[in-house]
Amino acid sequence: MTTTRTALENLTADELAAFRAEQEQAYADLKARGLTLDLTRGKPSTEQLDLSSELLRLPSTTRDRAGTDVRNYGGLEGLTELREIFADLLWVDLDQVICQGNSSLTLMHQVIAFMLLWGGPDSERPWRDEPALKFVCPVPGYDRHFAMLEDFGIEMLTVPMNVDGPDVAAVAELVKDDPAVKGMWIVPTYANPTGAVVSEEVAAELMAMPTAAPDFRILWDNAYAFHHLTEDEAKSADALSLAAASGHPNRPIMFASTSKITFAGAGVSVLAASLANKKWFLGHLSKASIGPDKVNHLRHVEFFGSADGVREHMRRHRAIIAPKFAAVDAALTERLEGLGIAEWTRPTGGYFVNLDVLDGTASRVVELAKEAGIALTPAGASFPYGRDPRDRNIRLAPTFPALAEVETAMAGVAVCVALAAAEKLSSR
Amino acid sequence: MTTTRTALENLTADELAAFRAEQEQAYADLKARGLTLDLTRGKPSTEQLDLSSELLRLPSTTRDRAGTDVRNYGGLEGLTELREIFADLLWVDLDQVICQGNSSLTLMHQVIAFMLLWGGPDSERPWRDEPALKFVCPVPGYDRHFAMLEDFGIEMLTVPMNVDGPDVAAVAELVKDDPAVKGMWIVPTYANPTGAVVSEEVAAELMAMPTAAPDFRILWDNAYAFHHLTEDEAKSADALSLAAASGHPNRPIMFASTSKITFAGAGVSVLAASLANKKWFLGHLSKASIGPDKVNHLRHVEFFGSADGVREHMRRHRAIIAPKFAAVDAALTERLEGLGIAEWTRPTGGYFVNLDVLDGTASRVVELAKEAGIALTPAGASFPYGRDPRDRNIRLAPTFPALAEVETAMAGVAVCVALAAAEKLSSR
Repeated sequence: MTTTRTALENLTADELAAFRAEQEQAYADLKARGLTLDLTRGKPSTEQLDLSSELLRLPSTTRDRAGTDVRNYGGLEGLTELREIFADLLWVDLDQVICQGNSSLTLMHQVIAFMLLWGGPDSERPWRDEPALKFVCPVPGYDRHFAMLEDFGIEMLTVPMNVDGPDVAAVAELVKDDPAVKGMWIVPTYANPTGAVVSEEVAAELMAMPTAAPDFRILWDNAYAFHHLTEDEAKSADALSLAAASGHPNRPIMFASTSKITFAGAGVSVLAASLANKKWFLGHLSKASIGPDKVNHLRHVEFFGSADGVREHMRRHRAIIAPKFAAVDAALTERLEGLGIAEWTRPTGGYFVNLDVLDGTASRVVELAKEAGIALTPAGASFPYGRDPRDRNIRLAPTFPALAEVETAMAGVAVCVALAAAEKLSSR
Repeated sequence: MTTTRTALENLTADELAAFRAEQEQAYADLKARGLTLDLTRGKPSTEQLDLSSELLRLPSTTRDRAGTDVRNYGGLEGLTELREIFADLLWVDLDQVICQGNSSLTLMHQVIAFMLLWGGPDSERPWRDEPALKFVCPVPGYDRHFAMLEDFGIEMLTVPMNVDGPDVAAVAELVKDDPAVKGMWIVPTYANPTGAVVSEEVAAELMAMPTAAPDFRILWDNAYAFHHLTEDEAKSADALSLAAASGHPNRPIMFASTSKITFAGAGVSVLAASLANKKWFLGHLSKASIGPDKVNHLRHVEFFGSADGVREHMRRHRAIIAPKFAAVDAALTERLEGLGIAEWTRPTGGYFVNLDVLDGTASRVVELAKEAGIALTPAGASFPYGRDPRDRNIRLAPTFPALAEVETAMAGVAVCVALAAAEKLSSR
């Protein structure tokens, strides 16, 4: 059936009216079901959290490998055996890695706050003393990255996020002459929300490109580095080595966490960077902390055992969530394929599906869905200041609801997409 | 014996020479023992940490009272039932309290950083835009408080810490005309290192005093609020109510943690403040965190059960550490009482004994102790920039070593104090 569909914009007025009436009926049926479903946030499901239940009975001992009592103060860099696991997983050196508390978002916030207050190892002055501050933001991107910059008063310059990473030419143009452009965000692996994986080539160019600011930072938020949805497991580009080879060792700062590996909110976070950056970060962090929660570090070390333990664990997550992503694709394909009113990603990892609907209809789709009891992330959320210039982008997060709920919700979303498009095209 | 001693300064030259020879012999004997003892930091002992071993097998469930899965994201204010316990313990309202991660030091650092970057609810501008920034620091005080201000570039003005709190007249004089004086530190209960307890009267005056800065902050670090060493359990002054009654509701921000209650480094932290301050803090914190480690919150709730559970638990700590404080006093009394060369506190709570030796000899005492294998906190550590103008203050931390070690170490320290004094007086 799907292959014989006519794109909506090619329909005659009568055909379009008929299509719209069909969608209005489907939407009325949808509302009548009185659903309460939520596809808003990238949260692990209960079934996923249960994969890590053993953590609640760990650690089985109170000493780390070196014999230090993990219950007492100290150890600012985090437990060595945990750092080893993440050095292995992130393809970086042990001495480049530190492990901290339950949130990599907190580490990112600290890095920017510390740059503002003190500047970095290669800064001419603290960022707060610069006349202007700007960051490059690939879009669509992660809403919390943008909200953080907005609160810090850092202007956001957008560039397109392509399938192999940010549009390098656009980035290079923004950074080459303007010293106020101090940094950029990237989610390099299975990006939020598009699922794009930054290629080795794009990564190399980003690390090598000339920047007017001597202390330009790429905040490399590798939140989904191990979150594969297929057997084709993407390998993140080796950002730290590429940067060092290009003579910009301090450019990237890498972040990761176990929030979507063990417990969201009760996991451990990771920062990896050049030795100069690490020393700088720990120097200021030492005034704010005597050390991270080493009991939780040891708990995670015992639970995983090794980097391979993490990789195996992620395959168990995949078994739970891959069918949900398949359900999203199936629902959208069944109702929307061929209509020329929606495009969506089929990510091979991460937590999101990026849905682009007919220009100017994303807000309407979210509104229709809400009235039908299906909560979607607000339209525009994946753009700085929540403003999607084309009003077409919707981020779908299918991991938290049960599979049957994802199927039901997505069938409903597809109806909303079709109806909003029909409304829009009818009004031309 | 001790009552018949003559003060060292009243000895004849020959008597002093004999006393010095006696101490030199005692010190030679001390060194010959080849000790390795450490009285440097206020850390709980293994025996104290073992009081909380049950935490390693908790929580027994994964839902809080409201039915929320504590393993997932969210809940920025912390678990309500944990907040209730601390509201009770700190005599504040539930809605004034938030619970966060493993370090109250981190909360203090965030409060100052947020004031620098954004200013508070009653600031005219962010603190970073002020021409100068100063804090009042009662001395002796907590070295990490001072190190934090030094890193932030905030000038430190010292006032004496009396037995009932900071010298209020001195504080009032510093803050009344100078708008650059933006805040002050206080450890109100069993202060680090003197053990002083801020009286209700002093607290009231501090909360009421006129300040040139409209956004003056008292960082009320109630780290030892429940850490009694006797049956006479001090009640902390009700800082938030006093401040509100004086028309300065946003002046105090209160901090506490379980670092010296359960596990140092794997406990929970607490912030209590006016609703305006709380809203302000959470507003910026929400850009840095999706929520604290609620699993650890629930773990602590199950372990304590209630505020009374905390109080009972602290009595078990007292049973372990009170004898160590008694040993410090006994050793100092036995060898030094009546000599007029040392004064020390007999704290009724907290983690430290404050030892004031003969002016100009503290560094020498620490040096002598080090050569004899006894590690003491560096002389001057309890003063901003590590500079004790009289070089007389030494902070003793007796909780971590075993009782017998405290006895041995303190007998040695007393020898060092006597020898250093004899050296000093001989050189006049």
